[in-house]
Amino acid sequence: MAQATRTSPAARGGRPTRRARILKAAEAIFAHRPYDEVSVDDIADRAGVAHGLVFHYFGSKRGLYLATLENVLAAGNAQFDANIEPDPLRWLEVTLDILLDGASEEEQLFIMTVRNAGGAEVTEVLTRERQGAADRVLEKLAPTRESPLLRMAIVSWAAYANELVASWLERRSDSRAHIRALLISALNETLKAVAALHKHPGFDPNTFARGSREPS
Amino acid sequence: MAQATRTSPAARGGRPTRRARILKAAEAIFAHRPYDEVSVDDIADRAGVAHGLVFHYFGSKRGLYLATLENVLAAGNAQFDANIEPDPLRWLEVTLDILLDGASEEEQLFIMTVRNAGGAEVTEVLTRERQGAADRVLEKLAPTRESPLLRMAIVSWAAYANELVASWLERRSDSRAHIRALLISALNETLKAVAALHKHPGFDPNTFARGSREPS
Repeated sequence: MAQATRTSPAARGGRPTRRARILKAAEAIFAHRPYDEVSVDDIADRAGVAHGLVFHYFGSKRGLYLATLENVLAAGNAQFDANIEPDPLRWLEVTLDILLDGASEEEQLFIMTVRNAGGAEVTEVLTRERQGAADRVLEKLAPTRESPLLRMAIVSWAAYANELVASWLERRSDSRAHIRALLISALNETLKAVAALHKHPGFDPNTFARGSREPS
Repeated sequence: MAQATRTSPAARGGRPTRRARILKAAEAIFAHRPYDEVSVDDIADRAGVAHGLVFHYFGSKRGLYLATLENVLAAGNAQFDANIEPDPLRWLEVTLDILLDGASEEEQLFIMTVRNAGGAEVTEVLTRERQGAADRVLEKLAPTRESPLLRMAIVSWAAYANELVASWLERRSDSRAHIRALLISALNETLKAVAALHKHPGFDPNTFARGSREPS
């Protein structure tokens, strides 16, 4: 706190940089340490700023966590958007690689978010991200009509994916390739099951299936 | 609060009954109204007790919510345990009927819990319940060895189930039969996908599949 009062008006001109530095430090720390074991002091120390400045920018540890999460998700979503792989299965594989790479890099942040360290705001973020994942899958699937069941099933698959990846990160008891394969199967089988329940599904349930191609 | 001070020592002797009455009122209210829209006063009024007594027994609205949830889950788990259907698919259908009946009856409680109204404690409850669901499925599946991937996949299926049922309750845009069918498919396909990743799975991935029997 003493340090905060030493901040000169000139230094205050550099606010965006210091805010970014705090976020970077927070990401580095939240990525590898469970939420409850992180103190704002640790982050302030790593960012080389005063404790009070963190509160000034983010209000609370939870606020900082949420801002860090949004930052990481924005970067992840930019990667998802950059995936313009035309083949649907290959697109899905790349999408899941981005997810698995990101989750591995931000291990604790991912686990804590799925296990809901941040309360209601994090739940909202998770819900939004699952809907976003469903949007991307639906765009690739391009159904002639989007039945509520189809969207619910894909959102539920995203919940399955979050849980599976979180469990895998917690235990690392199986190969990443297995996890990816299981996620691909789960989506394919979910789509087949939805198609089987509709007379005219309006989409190809094998869109993301291996088909006749060789395993990549 | 004024009422609380009127509680006589004799009345205090009836504590278990009043506690149970508060829990019953809380269940009735949390079942149909979102957590944020419920006040402790509503519950105290319905239970016919003083506002202060609710805090005396449960500490806070969140504490009351958690106790209500544990109460409802204990009743649900007793129903799950009472399901001694020998045929695995029939057993699964009955299990899912108990889940869907319970979730429909306690609609808002179920949605709020999956959407994590209660914070970290609710997350712990959810995690425990998903592991419990996996235990029950594993008992029926009776693998010769329990691979970590198998358990993770079944726990993730439970997360899929929670999400699908919560989405369905929120929208009621599809039939309950469809939801149940999708949950059965999803478990079967998850088991098949896990089996395909193991050289010697040690379980029959078609344990819960329709097989040659007629649809029930």
